[in-house]
Amino acid sequence: MTTLDNFTYDEITIGQTATYSKAVEERDLSLFAAVSGDLNPLHLDAVYAATTAFGERIAHGMLTGAVISAALAMKLPGPGTIYLAQDLRFRLPVKIGDTITVELEVTGKQDRRKSVTLDCKAYNQARKLVASGTADVIAPSEKLSLMPPELPGITISP
Amino acid sequence: MTTLDNFTYDEITIGQTATYSKAVEERDLSLFAAVSGDLNPLHLDAVYAATTAFGERIAHGMLTGAVISAALAMKLPGPGTIYLAQDLRFRLPVKIGDTITVELEVTGKQDRRKSVTLDCKAYNQARKLVASGTADVIAPSEKLSLMPPELPGITISP
Repeated sequence: MTTLDNFTYDEITIGQTATYSKAVEERDLSLFAAVSGDLNPLHLDAVYAATTAFGERIAHGMLTGAVISAALAMKLPGPGTIYLAQDLRFRLPVKIGDTITVELEVTGKQDRRKSVTLDCKAYNQARKLVASGTADVIAPSEKLSLMPPELPGITISP
Repeated sequence: MTTLDNFTYDEITIGQTATYSKAVEERDLSLFAAVSGDLNPLHLDAVYAATTAFGERIAHGMLTGAVISAALAMKLPGPGTIYLAQDLRFRLPVKIGDTITVELEVTGKQDRRKSVTLDCKAYNQARKLVASGTADVIAPSEKLSLMPPELPGITISP
């Protein structure tokens, strides 16, 4: 298993980039509904979704926000990051079967708080921008290399 | 079961408010890890988390973002809302057992796009502000009253 590694504030440079991908499966829409409480049938009911302008079930917009947050926590800066702020603009719907790829780029460093500003862009597999925004985080001061815990098994019964 | 109802653009008034609550359970941290891919042990491993400045497992910051997004989709404007943008400032950690209460207030209406701006504040059960921000949404043009679909059963095995 690969370790979870980070970049400390001192190691981070302006222009540094990282990418992170997540395939959006049908079960993610159920999991996001459970974790947020958003039970809108646009995300959960294929028959209802077919009657809407989208024509099919789409992912909750903030699921893309969750994937962007994972990019920051897993890749850049990685473990030990403290999330200060995020702005997001939702641009295109994400559908079941889409793969979201987040591209991060460091655009600023503020020595006083050891905070870092990152430009965040989320694309689908057709390289269409689905969401974009800016993150502010406090970067880790300590180098970490952690074994990621194994996720408990999650079973979804229809 | 109660229906999911919405407020159309024409019905929404400046100053209108809504609240929405979600209790954060241990399983939500596993579900959010699965849906985002963020496997940081601060959220998943009690022994590791005890060694950090937080002293215990905390929820992923964007889980509060997910609960804010559910408030918009479930309460105000409700079903048929299209999410345009969200900014978030994370202020305090959310712990297992906390209840997040989101308070929404309409602060602006833009007739041209039928978009609505809402102030969003998320409190814990001690009335401490854990996150705040602003949402921009397109409000529904059509009145909807939907039966929320039943969530599939989700089982977590340790």
